[in-house]
Amino acid sequence: SNISHNTLAGSAAGPHMSIDKLFPALLECFGIILCGYIAGRADIITESQAKGLGNFVSKFALPALLFKNMVLLDFGDVIWAFLWSVLVAKVTVFVLVCVLTLMVASPESRYSKAGLYAIFATQSNDFALGYPIVDALYRSTYPEYLQYIYLVAPVSLMLLNPIGFALCEVQRWRQASHPQHSTLGILAVVVLQNPIVFMVIVGIISHFALGQRIPAVLSEFIDGLANSFGGAALFYLGLTMVGQLRKLTRDTGVALILLITAKLLVMPLVCKDMVDILDIGVNSTSANHTSLSNFAFLYGVFPTAPSVAIYAGHYNMELEVVTSGMVISTFLSAPIMYVSAWLLTIPLMDPTPLVTELENVSFNISIVSLVALVWTIAVMLLSRKFNRLPHLFALNLFLAQAFLTCLSCVSVCV
Amino acid sequence: SNISHNTLAGSAAGPHMSIDKLFPALLECFGIILCGYIAGRADIITESQAKGLGNFVSKFALPALLFKNMVLLDFGDVIWAFLWSVLVAKVTVFVLVCVLTLMVASPESRYSKAGLYAIFATQSNDFALGYPIVDALYRSTYPEYLQYIYLVAPVSLMLLNPIGFALCEVQRWRQASHPQHSTLGILAVVVLQNPIVFMVIVGIISHFALGQRIPAVLSEFIDGLANSFGGAALFYLGLTMVGQLRKLTRDTGVALILLITAKLLVMPLVCKDMVDILDIGVNSTSANHTSLSNFAFLYGVFPTAPSVAIYAGHYNMELEVVTSGMVISTFLSAPIMYVSAWLLTIPLMDPTPLVTELENVSFNISIVSLVALVWTIAVMLLSRKFNRLPHLFALNLFLAQAFLTCLSCVSVCV
Repeated sequence: SNISHNTLAGSAAGPHMSIDKLFPALLECFGIILCGYIAGRADIITESQAKGLGNFVSKFALPALLFKNMVLLDFGDVIWAFLWSVLVAKVTVFVLVCVLTLMVASPESRYSKAGLYAIFATQSNDFALGYPIVDALYRSTYPEYLQYIYLVAPVSLMLLNPIGFALCEVQRWRQASHPQHSTLGILAVVVLQNPIVFMVIVGIISHFALGQRIPAVLSEFIDGLANSFGGAALFYLGLTMVGQLRKLTRDTGVALILLITAKLLVMPLVCKDMVDILDIGVNSTSANHTSLSNFAFLYGVFPTAPSVAIYAGHYNMELEVVTSGMVISTFLSAPIMYVSAWLLTIPLMDPTPLVTELENVSFNISIVSLVALVWTIAVMLLSRKFNRLPHLFALNLFLAQAFLTCLSCVSVCV
Repeated sequence: SNISHNTLAGSAAGPHMSIDKLFPALLECFGIILCGYIAGRADIITESQAKGLGNFVSKFALPALLFKNMVLLDFGDVIWAFLWSVLVAKVTVFVLVCVLTLMVASPESRYSKAGLYAIFATQSNDFALGYPIVDALYRSTYPEYLQYIYLVAPVSLMLLNPIGFALCEVQRWRQASHPQHSTLGILAVVVLQNPIVFMVIVGIISHFALGQRIPAVLSEFIDGLANSFGGAALFYLGLTMVGQLRKLTRDTGVALILLITAKLLVMPLVCKDMVDILDIGVNSTSANHTSLSNFAFLYGVFPTAPSVAIYAGHYNMELEVVTSGMVISTFLSAPIMYVSAWLLTIPLMDPTPLVTELENVSFNISIVSLVALVWTIAVMLLSRKFNRLPHLFALNLFLAQAFLTCLSCVSVCV
């Protein structure tokens, strides 16, 4: 009955995104991430074995996916104002984080922090997490939004990441006294060896060479590899998260909070504002404009990509902040995306379906919080902490909350 | 121009399978296997890292795929005569191989050989290799054939494999004098811990519990994992093939040839004959009957599954025959499937499209053989063997053949 409510509400109000498909999409992504995390924690897949899956995802499945999508890209549909907005927003946040870190950080690790933090705040997990969510929200309303992901990602990788790497190289050059390899050469290799950058260039060349369609003989082969990207990449993301939060220390807390604020709050707001500024007059209708600025906001909320942790590992600098920040931003982004996507559709809805939609969202949130409550209560009971006084109060509060949540679930169902 | 020829021929003659889609499907499968093999040979993914990918495929992606397909299964469409035929054929081949091996093999490894060889001849690579090929051939004509794969596989796993394992246990019990664990208990664990058997049982229970549809909330999650199976499984198959042929010794040659004959020749013929015997009178039309018996033949040609090599490794018996046999049967099955699928459609075709279709097949075969010829000539030139007399003749023959193939390619294109 919930699903029929949803569809009804969606079609009656005609909002810009299929909001009823967001919850299954988030559940897909975070469910598979959780599977990967469990597999890693239970040692079903060890840390060294996980690298095999990582190599398959980054060196075979992702290049195939990028090649396919770059060849099929329809440049006629692209609203260039959107790409410029996101690019300006990324540059703004990058410079902001960079300058602030350079001013505040202690001299012995100033440049590496500035470089890696700035990359952290701007490089988002576009393909594994972003794509399925944009696909769920916009496939039926604005399918052309999907290709923006493929256009924004490589530009940010080729433009901003090299600056960050250069700062890390400066740090390395200051710390070490022995002679180094040519920094510029290393940079060129790192950027061009990045499979994303490489395949996007190859894909754009093939786009014009093949006339916007993949040869029939090859299409099944490329589809076979590309289709395996989604599940395998999310599972690998979960695997990489095992044991990362343990690295968290107290003195990295402030940096972490600021970085996550920059990524999950400043970035989406700047993206949205830039679209509001740059898209005026170019777009045909105001409805299209609102939808585009909402999409820019959602794009900004995408969490940090796990490749940033790989860069930090490569330079062996700021590992604890970057890895734990990646995990925290990934899990924080889910509720932010869900709530903000939903709030953005409210102004466009009729009051009648809005009520059923509200019930629906509260039902979904209730289920998630019920699972979390049961987990917390179980941990408290099993660790026997509930005997001590403050924990006893907390336990009673949790139990009351759980009963309330159950009640609200039942009331929605009836 | 080739593709349009193909489609024309297919629609004009109305054959039972979309033969023009088989070549891209085979290219998909063997292309991805080749990618995996290259990744393994070039040490992009090491042998221990490959296990991570293997665990992801067998413990997460495949169970999700099986669960999804068992829930969506439509028992109303199933022709039970087909399932019985394949089952009887599998039992026949199993008993044949088992008895022959017991009669011929030397006493010190008689039982393990009988068990593992019989499993080798009957367990086929249904999901990674079989499914995409059946999907390409029958998706548009007989989509219900796809679900037979899910029905046949578990029965063979639960019925025949335990007998093979029991024979291996007998061998182990004869060789070792120290006390052993309960054999029956181990057998039960091995069979039930097999993710295929386990998920098929769970899937059938859910099929009736959920009323033949997956809950909307879960469907995206299960699809996400299931979609990643195809590419990842084929890639892993390629990885497992690295270095297997080096284990081949001269005295295992006869056993190998007999086993591969049993799997790729006896098995499909018995399958086809059993359908011809058991399906009489039950099916409505003779066209349907012919199509079903052709499908049984194709099903029989599916090569041996890589899990047989895992069993052999578990018992540490007959490893060299089973692993190299798996590699050889996989690569032999491709041309057998292509040629036999094509021969099976000839009787149903009009003469006019048949000519264009013939040109097409010869074009496809020419391309494959051209690649093989260039490879052979390059190896001869680089190894400087062509200086010696017999090799010089062979080189000239190869060159003549390559020119002829080029000519026939060009003539088809023009």
